[in-house]
Amino acid sequence: MPGAASASATLEALEHPIVQAPMGGGPGTAALAAAVSGAGGLGFLAAGYQATDAVRADVDAVRATTERPFGVNVFAPPGAAGDPAAIARYAEALAGDAARSDVELGEPRHHDDGWAAKLALLAELRVPVVSTTFGCPSPAAVAELQGAGAEVWVTVTSPEEAATAAAAGADALVVQGVEAGGHRASFDDATPGDYGLLALLQLVRAQVGLPLVASGGLATGRAVAAVLVAGARAAQLGTAFMRTPEAATSGMHRAALSAATPTALTRAFTGRTARGLVNRFLAEHSDEAPPGYPEVHHLTAPLRAAARSRGDADAVNLWAGQAHALGADLPAAELVRDLSRAARAAVAEAVDRLGSGR
Amino acid sequence: MPGAASASATLEALEHPIVQAPMGGGPGTAALAAAVSGAGGLGFLAAGYQATDAVRADVDAVRATTERPFGVNVFAPPGAAGDPAAIARYAEALAGDAARSDVELGEPRHHDDGWAAKLALLAELRVPVVSTTFGCPSPAAVAELQGAGAEVWVTVTSPEEAATAAAAGADALVVQGVEAGGHRASFDDATPGDYGLLALLQLVRAQVGLPLVASGGLATGRAVAAVLVAGARAAQLGTAFMRTPEAATSGMHRAALSAATPTALTRAFTGRTARGLVNRFLAEHSDEAPPGYPEVHHLTAPLRAAARSRGDADAVNLWAGQAHALGADLPAAELVRDLSRAARAAVAEAVDRLGSGR
Repeated sequence: MPGAASASATLEALEHPIVQAPMGGGPGTAALAAAVSGAGGLGFLAAGYQATDAVRADVDAVRATTERPFGVNVFAPPGAAGDPAAIARYAEALAGDAARSDVELGEPRHHDDGWAAKLALLAELRVPVVSTTFGCPSPAAVAELQGAGAEVWVTVTSPEEAATAAAAGADALVVQGVEAGGHRASFDDATPGDYGLLALLQLVRAQVGLPLVASGGLATGRAVAAVLVAGARAAQLGTAFMRTPEAATSGMHRAALSAATPTALTRAFTGRTARGLVNRFLAEHSDEAPPGYPEVHHLTAPLRAAARSRGDADAVNLWAGQAHALGADLPAAELVRDLSRAARAAVAEAVDRLGSGR
Repeated sequence: MPGAASASATLEALEHPIVQAPMGGGPGTAALAAAVSGAGGLGFLAAGYQATDAVRADVDAVRATTERPFGVNVFAPPGAAGDPAAIARYAEALAGDAARSDVELGEPRHHDDGWAAKLALLAELRVPVVSTTFGCPSPAAVAELQGAGAEVWVTVTSPEEAATAAAAGADALVVQGVEAGGHRASFDDATPGDYGLLALLQLVRAQVGLPLVASGGLATGRAVAAVLVAGARAAQLGTAFMRTPEAATSGMHRAALSAATPTALTRAFTGRTARGLVNRFLAEHSDEAPPGYPEVHHLTAPLRAAARSRGDADAVNLWAGQAHALGADLPAAELVRDLSRAARAAVAEAVDRLGSGR
């Protein structure tokens, strides 16, 4: 069992078993990460879509607020470019949207979001926890980060990905169920997978001995307790933190999260599978959107920016996990403490019930 | 909150919080249901696909073995018939399969599987628990069954279905996550939904006050414990019981369940969304299979029978939940006791960990 002897000192030392999911493209802020870490959970910065200077500034800002550990998440290289002809056809399909918004579609560029530069920066900054999404660092990259004092956490969506990450030397795994909002962390978006969180936790636990952080559709203390009982060391929540005042979630997105709107998986916004609230753009374009990340992200960016500026929630990516409707507007520190308290109460209640002579 | 005052005496009285999922079309047997109930769980018979005489015989057989409560599951009427032209096109697409198997495709009949006759029979037999799949009985039908001494459990896959079932007077809800093997229980297969179990449990719990039974991808005591902590009164497992000696699962199916083969949702076998192991037939025909249940079930029945008789696992419906690879070959009573014991241990471990000064 590769990595069976590893452990995560960061997870062991957490006051509350709550990890704030990194949220690129807006909602995640240094203030949010600092508030969560300061409250005894683990806050995360999202390096995805950011210039290295901005990541550096965010790390400095967190460290100016709290001495406690925090994490930074990096997008692994997305693999091969999408098919240019398919992306061109999708651009044609979006021509009506572009004309109505009076914008030009963006240039569908392929790139790796500065992977090597970001890993080097995080090593230089001696960030306590580095997590990855969309793939697994090489064993050499894992070792280099660990040599710089970081724990390396890899986000996985299948037992096979878990085995790969363990073999690469990861210190812990973030186990992402299909319930999760935003991008699927799958190593290969051609097979994004569909494991529900609880099934996946059982399968990964049977496969590797690493500490696990459970992610996807967790909105209540009971659900946090459930994943701890299932064998995770902590629960990672994203959507739940999007409504905190520390998050930079748009007002439109905040309002949408509190409604009982269904979610769906789609490549329509970015060319990579992600879960968002069903709106017009998602419904109209999901079937025709090709794989191609981040090309399609850049292609649709002007459409989304225009929709945001005119307040049109029907044409922006409203990432949300399946339990989004259960969120509340609370300061991040309060949310961390509330979830932790409710999780303990749920476990205590189960002990009372199971022990009552059944 | 409709039904908030209701409770399930059956669930309250269970020695072990384990419900065996009804499994129509083969694996479910009276011996299995009797063994599970006899061990202190709750066994279920599957009335789907069965003649009423066969259901009566199964109920008699369970009662001859154990005095403990058990349940019978009934398929609710499947709604409107599928599009005959689409089904005819699918029949053409299956012509090669039929020729290779040297069989004629079945007659794509639409019917309600004897819904009214089966409800009347179950009332006559005073069955302790009647559950439904594919829909919710009318309030009058619920009341009639309750008047005959039955608890009525409705299987739901969304918060909206939960609200409908509560309004109809259900005594308890079986909450089925997308991880589950076999047919999705969704009321309308046009929108089969994709809620993961843990997200769905939280959403349903926020919506209705009824006792909940959690179903989908549960294969270990830890997962049973997780759903209890999340607020369910019991866990329902199907795939885990398919490998017991009391089940009538085919040898081919048993062997397939123990491998790490991925599962997928498909309408290819029955015209209704169901989760099975990915094999040739599923991979080749899922994209072209139209909705139309039970027409497509009847259409493909001769193909599946022929494949079974020649031992070809690539052309039969190998229903399986996402955690199928974690199963074991154990007698049903032992499985019930093992799961219950492991669930208690998992909760106790969580109390120790959460209470250890974190």
